[in-house]
Amino acid sequence: MTTIDEALSIIHRGAEEILIEEELVEKLKSGRPLRIKAGFDPTAPDLHLGHTVLLNKMRQLQDLGHEVMFLIGDYTGMIGDPSGKNETRPPLTREQVEENAITYQKQVSKVLDPSKTKIMFNSEWGDKLSSVDLIKLAATHTVARMLERDDFHKRFTSNQPIAIHEFLYPLLQGYDSVAMKADIELGGTDQKFNLLMGRELQKHFGQKPQVVLMLPLLPGLDGVKKMSKSLGNYIGIDESAEQIFGKVMSISDETMWLWYELISFRSLADIKKLRDEASAGMNPRDVKFLLAEEIVSRFHNESAGKQARENFIAQFQKGQMPENMPELEIKVGAGLQIATIIKSAGLCESTSEAYRMLQQGAVRINGEKIVDKNLLISEKEIIILQVGKRKFAKIILQ
Amino acid sequence: MTTIDEALSIIHRGAEEILIEEELVEKLKSGRPLRIKAGFDPTAPDLHLGHTVLLNKMRQLQDLGHEVMFLIGDYTGMIGDPSGKNETRPPLTREQVEENAITYQKQVSKVLDPSKTKIMFNSEWGDKLSSVDLIKLAATHTVARMLERDDFHKRFTSNQPIAIHEFLYPLLQGYDSVAMKADIELGGTDQKFNLLMGRELQKHFGQKPQVVLMLPLLPGLDGVKKMSKSLGNYIGIDESAEQIFGKVMSISDETMWLWYELISFRSLADIKKLRDEASAGMNPRDVKFLLAEEIVSRFHNESAGKQARENFIAQFQKGQMPENMPELEIKVGAGLQIATIIKSAGLCESTSEAYRMLQQGAVRINGEKIVDKNLLISEKEIIILQVGKRKFAKIILQ
Repeated sequence: MTTIDEALSIIHRGAEEILIEEELVEKLKSGRPLRIKAGFDPTAPDLHLGHTVLLNKMRQLQDLGHEVMFLIGDYTGMIGDPSGKNETRPPLTREQVEENAITYQKQVSKVLDPSKTKIMFNSEWGDKLSSVDLIKLAATHTVARMLERDDFHKRFTSNQPIAIHEFLYPLLQGYDSVAMKADIELGGTDQKFNLLMGRELQKHFGQKPQVVLMLPLLPGLDGVKKMSKSLGNYIGIDESAEQIFGKVMSISDETMWLWYELISFRSLADIKKLRDEASAGMNPRDVKFLLAEEIVSRFHNESAGKQARENFIAQFQKGQMPENMPELEIKVGAGLQIATIIKSAGLCESTSEAYRMLQQGAVRINGEKIVDKNLLISEKEIIILQVGKRKFAKIILQ
Repeated sequence: MTTIDEALSIIHRGAEEILIEEELVEKLKSGRPLRIKAGFDPTAPDLHLGHTVLLNKMRQLQDLGHEVMFLIGDYTGMIGDPSGKNETRPPLTREQVEENAITYQKQVSKVLDPSKTKIMFNSEWGDKLSSVDLIKLAATHTVARMLERDDFHKRFTSNQPIAIHEFLYPLLQGYDSVAMKADIELGGTDQKFNLLMGRELQKHFGQKPQVVLMLPLLPGLDGVKKMSKSLGNYIGIDESAEQIFGKVMSISDETMWLWYELISFRSLADIKKLRDEASAGMNPRDVKFLLAEEIVSRFHNESAGKQARENFIAQFQKGQMPENMPELEIKVGAGLQIATIIKSAGLCESTSEAYRMLQQGAVRINGEKIVDKNLLISEKEIIILQVGKRKFAKIILQ
């Protein structure tokens, strides 16, 4: 049995803000399994490591005995997304939503315990909502209140259009909390407005308001910007073991410690021990090995984790991978030949030399040998490029 | 058969603005009966003379062979009314709406030809509207566009609350035009924004946009402010023949000519003839008699019109009612004794004299004898107060 203090310490791990702490304590004291809500956008079913900050917290709550509800916003997804893209996304069809849900289910089972996870769809209650119900929901809040939301405020004051239906989206998201009788809702700090809307609507419908648990956004491979697909600084849950391992190895030490706190399954005590060992002279690369192996094991399996580590060490010629690789940014635009990138990175004197090295099979990206010497690179991501045995560069493709 | 030019001249009578004239001509040229929409608020079934400006225009179009649809906004009435009252009206129940509809039907049959009038309820299509339909409707317009509406703009800039559902109301009202396939919509000039919304939504749904025919607001008994219940300067359709006759007789000559144009069934040629006769020396009071008699006849019957005229002449002692009565404003607040009003108006020296006159049956309001000497007056309206045979005053009770 975990005490309330122990539970609180687990819940607080990595959390950015909890509203309202006293209510959380009260709910924990009740002793009953709490209903945990986390909503996911059905338009982006390819989860990356950034999403697992939330999933990990869900897992921790699951392990504490609470009822975790993974909500797929299929109903609201048909509205399109007003979350600050400053443009209206095309609404999804029911078929696309269902396809995406299957992908989600497969992906989240790598972090959550599938037997204890309730996958829910807000179409369950959304489809039953009449236009009159929606009008009544809309009557609970004012235009001014809605324009307090950061992205709406920015768009409004800069004369960018906000379609009226976008004002309904936070209300419907809040109504999900009512329908689910959520005790706690998890979300990113950028979701604060919508999370609080859930509290307000629950009060309006005579329920005890949910506790809002906000988690920070995971910094991406660059350690600066939040991890996102469009920035290319991400690790996809579905990437190969080698890709994931190589990408984790490319992050800075500082970012590594943050990732330990936010996405590792290790206890805080374990992490403290690792820090102490690093201070006492342990090679930070070895600490990073542990993290990379843990993440690969989670998304593939334990033997894949070990194997990826061995491959990485073998490919990078144990001990020969420089501690500090040169790091540079290259604009790929619509696409660049790999040979051009090799030359631009200064790993070969000329593109013809780069072609020769490619032909000899001496070029690797994140440890993987390049076979196509005319490979066109257009994705914006961060790679470790290796030419021959000793030349390495960390390249931010933009 | 009426020519298109004749029809246009009838349609233009009293109209403030027509959008778009060319489209109106085109629709008239088609030769088919046009679908005429006019929407009425189900919260106020007690029609007054101001409403008949619209009803008269509907009657004229009906006489031209077009299909007049009297729309009762029962569905939208359940939302409450955002029309500039700057506060949210309590939504109506279905039962209240139905009760009000019966009253409406009874009242409008005094102007419209009941056999040619289609009474419609927007719940017919509103009830079938799902929340998804409403969301899609909301997606057709922006928040900025909605805030262009005068009353929303004023409330927004003066930090008065606008509930989000109020933004849905003009959209639903516009959607009525789509559901009704309206060719022409009639409305007051204060409805311009909502009338244009109908045009926009019809275009969005692939229909030819309706022509918008805006009518001026009828000035009330004071000749200055628009006729309205809350200002008390109105004539209710259900008032007694004597009340209506007396009230019409209280208006100024200038207001009378405007009323002739907007609410008389007389042709423009007839009215021109009356004007000429008045210029040539006909007593303006006699012209007013004709209007008062016409209006009473419409809302009661012809003999009631004649009778009211005779009563009026008898009561006011033919020839003794002054041409220009003193006119004054009196604040009634929560209620004033009739004796106090008589004294304030200077028709008696003291309240005790006023009580004496009341006891003698020598006090009349709009020609009707007052029997209760302790009568408490609280309604804000315009009255002709008579004490004895020669003392008159027109009083604006506020």
